[in-house]
Amino acid sequence: MTDRRAAAVEHARANSDRILEELSDFLSIPSISNDPTSESDIDGAANWMADRLRALGLDDVGVLPTGGNPVVYGESLSAGDSAPTVLVYGHYDVQSPSPLKGWDSKPFQATVRGEKLYARGASDNKGQIMACVAAVEAAASAGPLPVNVRFLIEGEEEIGSVNLLDFLRENKSRLGADVVLNPDAGMLGADRPTVYYGLRGMYVCTLRVSGPSRDLHSGGYGGVVHNPIHALSKVIAGMHDCERRVALPSFYDSVRDMTPEERAEMAALPRGDASYLEQSGVPELWGERDYIAAEREGARPALDVIRISGGSTKSAIPIAAEAILTVRLVPDQSPDEVHEQLLRYLESHVPPTVNWEVLDWSGFPASLTDRNSAAVQSLSAAMETVWGRKPVYYRSGGSIAAVGQMQSALGVDSLLTGFSLPDDHVHGPNERIHLPTWRRGIEALVHFLYNMADGAAAQ
Amino acid sequence: MTDRRAAAVEHARANSDRILEELSDFLSIPSISNDPTSESDIDGAANWMADRLRALGLDDVGVLPTGGNPVVYGESLSAGDSAPTVLVYGHYDVQSPSPLKGWDSKPFQATVRGEKLYARGASDNKGQIMACVAAVEAAASAGPLPVNVRFLIEGEEEIGSVNLLDFLRENKSRLGADVVLNPDAGMLGADRPTVYYGLRGMYVCTLRVSGPSRDLHSGGYGGVVHNPIHALSKVIAGMHDCERRVALPSFYDSVRDMTPEERAEMAALPRGDASYLEQSGVPELWGERDYIAAEREGARPALDVIRISGGSTKSAIPIAAEAILTVRLVPDQSPDEVHEQLLRYLESHVPPTVNWEVLDWSGFPASLTDRNSAAVQSLSAAMETVWGRKPVYYRSGGSIAAVGQMQSALGVDSLLTGFSLPDDHVHGPNERIHLPTWRRGIEALVHFLYNMADGAAAQ
Repeated sequence: MTDRRAAAVEHARANSDRILEELSDFLSIPSISNDPTSESDIDGAANWMADRLRALGLDDVGVLPTGGNPVVYGESLSAGDSAPTVLVYGHYDVQSPSPLKGWDSKPFQATVRGEKLYARGASDNKGQIMACVAAVEAAASAGPLPVNVRFLIEGEEEIGSVNLLDFLRENKSRLGADVVLNPDAGMLGADRPTVYYGLRGMYVCTLRVSGPSRDLHSGGYGGVVHNPIHALSKVIAGMHDCERRVALPSFYDSVRDMTPEERAEMAALPRGDASYLEQSGVPELWGERDYIAAEREGARPALDVIRISGGSTKSAIPIAAEAILTVRLVPDQSPDEVHEQLLRYLESHVPPTVNWEVLDWSGFPASLTDRNSAAVQSLSAAMETVWGRKPVYYRSGGSIAAVGQMQSALGVDSLLTGFSLPDDHVHGPNERIHLPTWRRGIEALVHFLYNMADGAAAQ
Repeated sequence: MTDRRAAAVEHARANSDRILEELSDFLSIPSISNDPTSESDIDGAANWMADRLRALGLDDVGVLPTGGNPVVYGESLSAGDSAPTVLVYGHYDVQSPSPLKGWDSKPFQATVRGEKLYARGASDNKGQIMACVAAVEAAASAGPLPVNVRFLIEGEEEIGSVNLLDFLRENKSRLGADVVLNPDAGMLGADRPTVYYGLRGMYVCTLRVSGPSRDLHSGGYGGVVHNPIHALSKVIAGMHDCERRVALPSFYDSVRDMTPEERAEMAALPRGDASYLEQSGVPELWGERDYIAAEREGARPALDVIRISGGSTKSAIPIAAEAILTVRLVPDQSPDEVHEQLLRYLESHVPPTVNWEVLDWSGFPASLTDRNSAAVQSLSAAMETVWGRKPVYYRSGGSIAAVGQMQSALGVDSLLTGFSLPDDHVHGPNERIHLPTWRRGIEALVHFLYNMADGAAAQ
């Protein structure tokens, strides 16, 4: 298949500008899943994706209902039973672009400046989906597809893939695959091809602390009743000890230690503390003192309040204050145990001068991938072909609910890749993708498809 | 003047339903000064008030510009130089009605249920202004006004009277008065006529804690950088010690102690801890352990965060978190010294992992009134006439910038009264005024005007 492979790579190179235009069109749809006003844009993005999969020549393309935002599906099984099947997972939904004032160009008007394309979703995840589409298109242009492919593009990744598990269970019989290709991870640098072998899990809840039965005039009641904002602040402050460790009871009991070999590998990564400092813009890094930043990101749990709110500009002691709390989990923590730890912490730390409740909690565990699988080896070789160097193996601090769900519902491992870079401003203003890396990524995916086929043929 | 006084009281009684209708009309204007969208309503309320003062027969009525919302002014000096001059101060602006879901009727559609009239501003302060208007109308209906009166109704009380001081200074020559009648205080109960002799002052600022140069993906940076929400929470938590005292350095150094006599008087007030508990709805009171609630409200300083905000529903470590901080001051604290104390606290308590700044600070000191003045005695006697019992003397925890400003710009003390009750839900949902108390208040103000004249004549 050497000729076909070369022709496919040539096709990818010759058509990358057109693919970029298509991506820009896709990015113009503000398919924000955590903004309840955008239902029509959610449907717009799903239909756009379905049209694109039809143009790719896939069969059984459809926009399939779930309990929430629909899933887009399409497949090509023409490579036959002897060829491997790759299930491409992605998500067409994006995070809110707020704060808008941080953007130098409109978040839903893709803009090229220098070597980068700026837009919400450029990196997370529309650009990555389109790289997969481009690679399959390239392979299809050069002859029969070397592997079977399925595309499953969901619309709720940014809100925790809350309906994906049910969808996967209900459609298990039609979703058989050897591996899930999940391009929602990234690379450590433009010249550092990367294979992610770990992800953190997630626990999320809303913590509400309340006191007065109505907003109270802060003149009449200041110093007389406990302000829920103060009580919540103290509760949050107490969630970390002076060693910057999470202070929930028994929190670290199930945290799996890294091996000395893994720590040595992490220390050698091209992702030192200085790069975290530079890319974050903080005056000084923070976190558990005994671990370097890469370890804290990938292999240590973290508790973060992502939103706090309470009160208004009026001079009142508010009825309540709220925090959205997230915990990034590592093996072998479970969301349920962290929930219990939080409840125990609150029971012993919230004073009787206020009331509290924990609302809307959910979560999923962390995941680790077998680095010796055929899929990992196929991707590693593909990256080495394109970049001329072996990829590094990385544990990401991110959390992708779909990875655990694919494992539990379909029994299929995920291969985590993607061509975003650490300074892509994912979830922040000025999100962008580095176009030379994205183009190399398309080529690497072309090689990956042929490597998968070759590996299967060699068995 | 006994006959005139009786005729005036009779007029007030006979016309209270019409005055109530006028008040309902006034309350329909959402003149919210802390909501920047309401400029036309601010002007609408000012013009409504000016029309009402013209109908009252006052001279020189006008809506006068300031650096912000206009002041409404009108006067009647026909009583002559030998009669006292009373400057009626009030404010036509109101607080935001949020949260709207707490209201049982529309906040800007005055609704009578039982003995109460519900609307934003019913108690604070439109109902009180209209009581003063009704009293002057009643006295004018019975003959020449016994005293000279000036009305000065501002539109920025709820945002700290930020432009009033300049206005007073610029108009000092036309605002001469013997006393300011300020009906922005209230009564301790429907059968407890009350004279306020103290108010707390105010220090307000915005505290901003920032870290990352952009919102950071909380997967990639959770546990690696210091979340500004956590840092701000810890800073706020540290502002009170375990004795519930404010922990800013030297904070209590200039706090004037109460005398044993004053503490005994406060302990005897019809405003025990149980009434604070009942009216606030909190599970347990809170505050400095060595003082009863009435002392903590009126004579002890209090620090309250009235708003905290940071982050969003997206999974990100936000660029910053903010708190609006208020300190209710008591004699002899100054806003400047508290500002310095806050800065010293922040310098020593904010860790180097985040940045901080204090924005938009302002303030004014507390005030105490001479309980033996002619005005206080005139009001006390008027209340005793109407309620049949002597008023109680009370130190309020509220803060009225205008009181200090009237003293410093015009050299005139304020007489603090008003006919709101502790459960009027001032600044909260379902704000209301107790109509029987309000009607008695109008009568008491009629007597006050004649008492002031009689006192001056007796000298």
